Amino acid sequence: MIDCDTAGRRLMARCDALAALSQEGATALTRLYLTPEHAQANAQVGLWMGESGMTHRVDALGNIIGRYEGTDPDAPAVLIGSHLDTVRDAGRYDGMLGVVTGIEAVDALHRAGKRLPFPIEVSGFGDEEGVRFGATLIGSRGQAGTLDPGTLDALDRDGISLFEALNAFGLDASRWTEAARPSGSLLAYLEVHIEQGPLLESLGLPLGVVTAIAGATRRSYRLVGMAGHSGTVPMEARRDALVGAAEAILAVEAVGRDHGVVATVGQVESLPGAVNVIPGAARFTLDLRAADDGARARALADLDKRLESLARRRNLMLCMEPLHENNATPCSPHLMATLAHALEGVGQPVHQLMSGAGHDAMAFTDLVAVAMLFVRCAGGISHNPKERITAGDAGLAAKVLHDTLLLLAEDFSR
Amino acid sequence: MIDCDTAGRRLMARCDALAALSQEGATALTRLYLTPEHAQANAQVGLWMGESGMTHRVDALGNIIGRYEGTDPDAPAVLIGSHLDTVRDAGRYDGMLGVVTGIEAVDALHRAGKRLPFPIEVSGFGDEEGVRFGATLIGSRGQAGTLDPGTLDALDRDGISLFEALNAFGLDASRWTEAARPSGSLLAYLEVHIEQGPLLESLGLPLGVVTAIAGATRRSYRLVGMAGHSGTVPMEARRDALVGAAEAILAVEAVGRDHGVVATVGQVESLPGAVNVIPGAARFTLDLRAADDGARARALADLDKRLESLARRRNLMLCMEPLHENNATPCSPHLMATLAHALEGVGQPVHQLMSGAGHDAMAFTDLVAVAMLFVRCAGGISHNPKERITAGDAGLAAKVLHDTLLLLAEDFSR
Repeated sequence: MIDCDTAGRRLMARCDALAALSQEGATALTRLYLTPEHAQANAQVGLWMGESGMTHRVDALGNIIGRYEGTDPDAPAVLIGSHLDTVRDAGRYDGMLGVVTGIEAVDALHRAGKRLPFPIEVSGFGDEEGVRFGATLIGSRGQAGTLDPGTLDALDRDGISLFEALNAFGLDASRWTEAARPSGSLLAYLEVHIEQGPLLESLGLPLGVVTAIAGATRRSYRLVGMAGHSGTVPMEARRDALVGAAEAILAVEAVGRDHGVVATVGQVESLPGAVNVIPGAARFTLDLRAADDGARARALADLDKRLESLARRRNLMLCMEPLHENNATPCSPHLMATLAHALEGVGQPVHQLMSGAGHDAMAFTDLVAVAMLFVRCAGGISHNPKERITAGDAGLAAKVLHDTLLLLAEDFSR
Repeated sequence: MIDCDTAGRRLMARCDALAALSQEGATALTRLYLTPEHAQANAQVGLWMGESGMTHRVDALGNIIGRYEGTDPDAPAVLIGSHLDTVRDAGRYDGMLGVVTGIEAVDALHRAGKRLPFPIEVSGFGDEEGVRFGATLIGSRGQAGTLDPGTLDALDRDGISLFEALNAFGLDASRWTEAARPSGSLLAYLEVHIEQGPLLESLGLPLGVVTAIAGATRRSYRLVGMAGHSGTVPMEARRDALVGAAEAILAVEAVGRDHGVVATVGQVESLPGAVNVIPGAARFTLDLRAADDGARARALADLDKRLESLARRRNLMLCMEPLHENNATPCSPHLMATLAHALEGVGQPVHQLMSGAGHDAMAFTDLVAVAMLFVRCAGGISHNPKERITAGDAGLAAKVLHDTLLLLAEDFSR
C-alpha cells in the first residue's frame, strides 16, 4: 500500500534533489547527457533504488537501471522508464518524475515484502531531449535496439562525438549495442510523465491515460515574390512574400482547427527584412501533430492545397523542405484499460488524452506494449523553470502506478 | 537647344564615371557622405560644372554648388539639386542623375551663349540617404537652414561624429550654419530623379510630374500572447502571437488597398522563434505612406481599429512604438504646370504621380516652391546594382528640364 501524502512529499523532495545537479549551479537546471551532472544523477538514483530493494547498474549507453526481482527470475520484466536529462533552463519534473515515481511504486512492494510474478525494472534514460547531440531518445532507443549506429558519430557543440563522450563517461563505447534488450525480455513498458499541456488542469483532473503519442511532421516553407521600395510600388503591383506567408500562417491555424490536429508556425523570417522594403521572400516553419496518422496526412494534403492556391493567386513561388517526420505511437489498449482500472480503484474519473510531445515510450513501441500516465501540471507550462506539479498529484500517480503493477500481476497469474 | 541623343549618351557616361568612385572599388557602388570618394565625386562634378560655364564651390556641409549667372546677378536663383551619396551596393542613377541632368541643362544654355533673367545653381548634396550618420537629407536640410544642430553629434559606425567628419573633410565644422541659404535667395527648386517605382514603365511613359512627396509613418508593433508546446496545447486554448501578427499583416495590406495609400510590413519576428514552440510574442513593423496627410491619418485610424479588434478577439496584448513620422510635401502647382507645359512641348503626355520615396526636395519645401520630374526606371528597381534607365529617357529629361528653365524665364520677365 502507498500512502499518497508521504509518497507525494518524497517525490517532490527527490525532484528537488535532482534539480540541484545542474551544469549551471543554482542559476538554472541544465543537465545534459554524459556530463558529470548526469553521473551524479545516476549515482543519486542508484542510491534510492538500493534503498527500495533493487539492484542497479549503468548500461552501455549510460542509462541507470534498477531491478526488483519477481518470483520467477526468468519471466519478462515490466519496465518503468523516463529520462534524467533536461533541456537548458529546464523544469524539474519533465522526465525525472517518471523515474522517481517508478522507484516509489517498487518501494511500496519492497516495504510490504511483496514479490510479483515478474521482475520490475526502473530505467532512468540518459538522453531523451536530444540537447547535447541533436538526436533525441538516445537512451531509450539504445535499450530498444533501434538506435541508428550513425548517431555514435553525432557531435556536440564542442565537437565531441557521442562515441568519445561514452568513453569519457567511463563506459566502453565499442560495446554500445549491449544496451539493447533482447526481444521477449519485456512484458510491458510504463511511463509516468507530466502532461506538458493544459488539458488535465482545465478539466480539474490530476491524472490522465495517454491514448497515443502524436505523429509529427515538421517542414520549412519558402515563398518568393519580388522585393521593392515600400513607398513607390502601388499595392496592386506588389508580389509581397510576407503577406503571402501571413495568409499561410492563418491557413495553418485553420487546418489545425478543421482537422482536429495541432498545427503551429513557430518561426518566420522576411527578406531582406528592412522596414522600408517590400519583402521579396519569406520563410516559415510548420509543426503539425496528430494522434492518428491518417488525420495528419489529410490535414497536410489540405494545407498543401491551400498554400498552393494562395501562392498561385499572389504570383509567389512556393518551396517546401521536409525537416522531420514520425508516425504516431498508439498505446496498448490492454495497458490503457489496466491504468483506467487502477484510476477507478482510487476513485478518479478516467480521462484519455493524446500526448503531443514525444516520450521515451515511443522508442519501445516496436519491442513491447507501452502505456503512459499523465500528471497534471500548472498552466501546461514545461521546458521552463516555472514547471509545477502538486505533491498530491505526484503521490496519486505513484499509487496508480503501484496498483497497475498489482493488476498486471493478477493478469499474469491468470 | 538640346540634342536628346547626345545629351542622353553623355548623361549615361557621367553616371558611369561617378559609379566608379566607390568605397568598394569595382565590386559594388557605395559612396558615403564626407568620405574620400565623396571628395572625388565633388571634384569630378566641379570639372563638369566648369566645362558648362559655371563657377563652383563646396559649401560648409560639403555640398558642391555650381552657379550659372543670369542677366540680373541679384535675382533669386533657380536651384536644381539632387544627391551624390548612395546606399550600400547602390544603383548608379538614384541621386546622381539629377545632378548631371542639371549640369546638362545649363550646358545647353552655355553653348547657346544664353543667359536667363535669374541665376541657375546646381547642387550635388553630400547626404540624402542618411547611411553614414543615420540622419537623412543632411546636405539639403543644411542648405534649407533646417538641419537640427543635434545632428552634428550623430556618430557613424566607427564612432566619428558628423562634426569631426566635416573637419576631416577639410571644412571648418564650426561654420556649418553658413551652408544655409538666406530666405528669398531662391526662386524655385527643381529635381530630376528616377522614379524608383514601376508606374511610368507600366504606362509606357519616359517621364512623369510629381504631385507630392508622400508623408510617411513608421511604427513597430508588438503582440504578446502565451508561449506553449506546439504538441500539447490544443488549438482552442492557444494565444498564438504570430497568428495574430499574420492577421495584422493582412490588415495592413487591406488598409493600403482600401485607402489608396501604400502600406508595408517589412520586418517580422516571432518569439521565442523555435519550430516546436507556440509564439508567445511577435513583433512587426509598419511603413505607411500617402501623398495626402488626411488620407494617411484615416488609414492609420482604420488600421488601429482593426489591430485592436483582432488583439481583443485573440486575447493578445498590443503595443505600438512610433519610429518615424513626416508629413507630405506637396509640389508647387505652378511649377508642376510649367513642367507639364515643357513635356507637352516635346510631344509627351503628362502623367502625374506621387513620390513614395523621400527626396532632397522635401528639405526645401518651407523655403521655396519645389517640383520634381521623374524618369522611368526598369522594373521599378532601385537601391540595387540592377537599377537601369535608358539614355533616351535621360536625354529627354535634360531637354524637359532645359525647356522648363526657359518657360520660367518667360514667366519671370512677364
